[in-house]
Amino acid sequence: MIITLTTDFGLSDPFVGIMKGVIFSIVSDVQIVDITHDIRSYDILEAAFVLKTTYSYFPAGTIHVVVVDPGVGSARHPLAAFSQDHYFVAPDNGVLSFVLDTGPPNLPTIHRISNESLFQGAISRTFHGRDIFAPTAAHLARGAPIDTVGERILDFVKKPLPRARPRGENGLLARVLRIDKFGNIVTDLRRDDLHDDFVIRVAGLDVTRLCESFSEADPSEFFAIEGSTGYIEIALNQGSAAERLNVPLGTEIEVETGSPNH
Amino acid sequence: MIITLTTDFGLSDPFVGIMKGVIFSIVSDVQIVDITHDIRSYDILEAAFVLKTTYSYFPAGTIHVVVVDPGVGSARHPLAAFSQDHYFVAPDNGVLSFVLDTGPPNLPTIHRISNESLFQGAISRTFHGRDIFAPTAAHLARGAPIDTVGERILDFVKKPLPRARPRGENGLLARVLRIDKFGNIVTDLRRDDLHDDFVIRVAGLDVTRLCESFSEADPSEFFAIEGSTGYIEIALNQGSAAERLNVPLGTEIEVETGSPNH
Amino acid sequence: MIITLTTDFGLSDPFVGIMKGVIFSIVSDVQIVDITHDIRSYDILEAAFVLKTTYSYFPAGTIHVVVVDPGVGSARHPLAAFSQDHYFVAPDNGVLSFVLDTGPPNLPTIHRISNESLFQGAISRTFHGRDIFAPTAAHLARGAPIDTVGERILDFVKKPLPRARPRGENGLLARVLRIDKFGNIVTDLRRDDLHDDFVIRVAGLDVTRLCESFSEADPSEFFAIEGSTGYIEIALNQGSAAERLNVPLGTEIEVETGSPNH
Repeated sequence: MIITLTTDFGLSDPFVGIMKGVIFSIVSDVQIVDITHDIRSYDILEAAFVLKTTYSYFPAGTIHVVVVDPGVGSARHPLAAFSQDHYFVAPDNGVLSFVLDTGPPNLPTIHRISNESLFQGAISRTFHGRDIFAPTAAHLARGAPIDTVGERILDFVKKPLPRARPRGENGLLARVLRIDKFGNIVTDLRRDDLHDDFVIRVAGLDVTRLCESFSEADPSEFFAIEGSTGYIEIALNQGSAAERLNVPLGTEIEVETGSPNH
Repeated sequence: MIITLTTDFGLSDPFVGIMKGVIFSIVSDVQIVDITHDIRSYDILEAAFVLKTTYSYFPAGTIHVVVVDPGVGSARHPLAAFSQDHYFVAPDNGVLSFVLDTGPPNLPTIHRISNESLFQGAISRTFHGRDIFAPTAAHLARGAPIDTVGERILDFVKKPLPRARPRGENGLLARVLRIDKFGNIVTDLRRDDLHDDFVIRVAGLDVTRLCESFSEADPSEFFAIEGSTGYIEIALNQGSAAERLNVPLGTEIEVETGSPNH
Repeated sequence: MIITLTTDFGLSDPFVGIMKGVIFSIVSDVQIVDITHDIRSYDILEAAFVLKTTYSYFPAGTIHVVVVDPGVGSARHPLAAFSQDHYFVAPDNGVLSFVLDTGPPNLPTIHRISNESLFQGAISRTFHGRDIFAPTAAHLARGAPIDTVGERILDFVKKPLPRARPRGENGLLARVLRIDKFGNIVTDLRRDDLHDDFVIRVAGLDVTRLCESFSEADPSEFFAIEGSTGYIEIALNQGSAAERLNVPLGTEIEVETGSPNH
């Protein structure tokens, strides 16, 4: 059985190690995999996006724990859910938006976690990763049925998936979603948004070429590429596009999509 | 069996990976958990503090390896100890102060590691994490009795646990122990130190409110909170108190504790 | 069975987590160990060096995956190799130079990975760590013979091992290979290069003392030491030599080796 962890805890403090200790105290026969602990502090949308682009590479039955939890200690509820053969354990604040918001016939099963007998000692109001989320995931990994965690619910907090918005005729207003480690600028454009003669205007530059791989671009040429997450990225072969163009997260990008039947 | 690792090695160099290779070369049926490798270089007290706030979340029998070792290659001895159902393997430089300094009847068993047949090849004078600590932990994980590592000793290097000091009547002089990833300022105050009408003076600011959770504070309000480590922290709801107040580690903080029977 | 990972992916993006998900989807009974994910982006030589100084600490039969892959999506081939009792899976770009370039009788077995039935779904042209290298390693870990990955080849991309070059009589021109987390300056000098009365000239400073351990040096004394990687390092006891001397990677260092029979 596998439990994955996605948090904004960083790796300098012992928070992640403590969660792992709690899990192993409940179930020994489990593999714990770190997705990332470098989610920007309190950034629910980033965590939701990372989870969506990652979870399906794990085997069916994997339990994904997400702790990005600005409302810890408030009235927001903890959730355990089952959707498309994976389990998810997280606060009800939108982090599960993109993995649970599936249409019929793949409706998720969602439970509010309330069974205190599963928890880790007294419940603090500052560290539910340790006290609620890790132990609940561990009990699921031991084989506890999901309906033992608490009552089933139908509604949960949903955030809309980032998508470029229409702008004029054949135009889109896109956004910088993420900068990856290589400096690739991940946008909320999809491959289908772009036709043959598209123009992406970013930081005063017109990007007009779509490459299939990084290495087919010329040196110092900015180009568009469908990244491994399925979104269009603005990139530079063996260089950091983000550093060179200096575009922070959230920057708006004007796009002419080109004409479908050119 | 679980082995945890706490070091100041960082994750960019292969030092931690090498220690894991050495462990798995001796014992295959073990889970290795990283507590943190971001201890400040040579900071024995930080490592001691992190270990104390973490180890008890792991199952009984876990082996905790701590390598923060400014004296590597000098006369300081390597130790293996058993205390309160956990094993500890570390240099005798104070990193085990807070987990071994327990009063009767829970006296720890402490051994000086000297059995070279347990070591990894020739002993370098620069990397005992690889040559001594990792292999000793691996042999314990395989079931070697602790007295096979070397002679039992009674004394070891102890550092005092950080605690706010008295200052005048109803006053304390506290210190900044740690800044966590969210910018919470961890002090050496305990909850019991503060009464109803306390005042914590930090960076020219009077903090007078104790919150039970981060989310009950108003935006941009600095408040005190009992953190998950059991120490009082100065915090800001969804913001970095440390960045806003600009208080480095070690900063002294004047505290009026208030009167117990107000 | 153990699979190690060495990449330039960093830990903020989910790339490493995705590779682990792919591996566990193919084989469940495996331990995955991170060597480092902080290789400088596209730095093949750094990855080759880290791999060389690390792999042999793992048990025989370990599978080492290296993904530093500036040519992803280009014509460079993926390789799987067996050398000195270890497996290696990596792009054919030089990252395996120092582990495969062994003389007789220890010749490596090298295969070009081409068996698409082992891969993970459709092959992207941007993330072969996920699509080719992780699944190939997982199949090896499950027991697939190495010749199932593709045809055996004899030639592969080799880079020369960094070594100080001769300069005048009894002189060497060395280079800064690496700065470690403690600020030790790792050079491409070997212990055998230095005789009793050597002088290492770095940043206007003459280093003339070779210490056996960090702790035998005086405070604020710069000294040479044979590091745990087998290379000579310029170091400072409990301080960062690199920060104090301000020498970036690649800096050239003049060395007088001294006379062998002084």
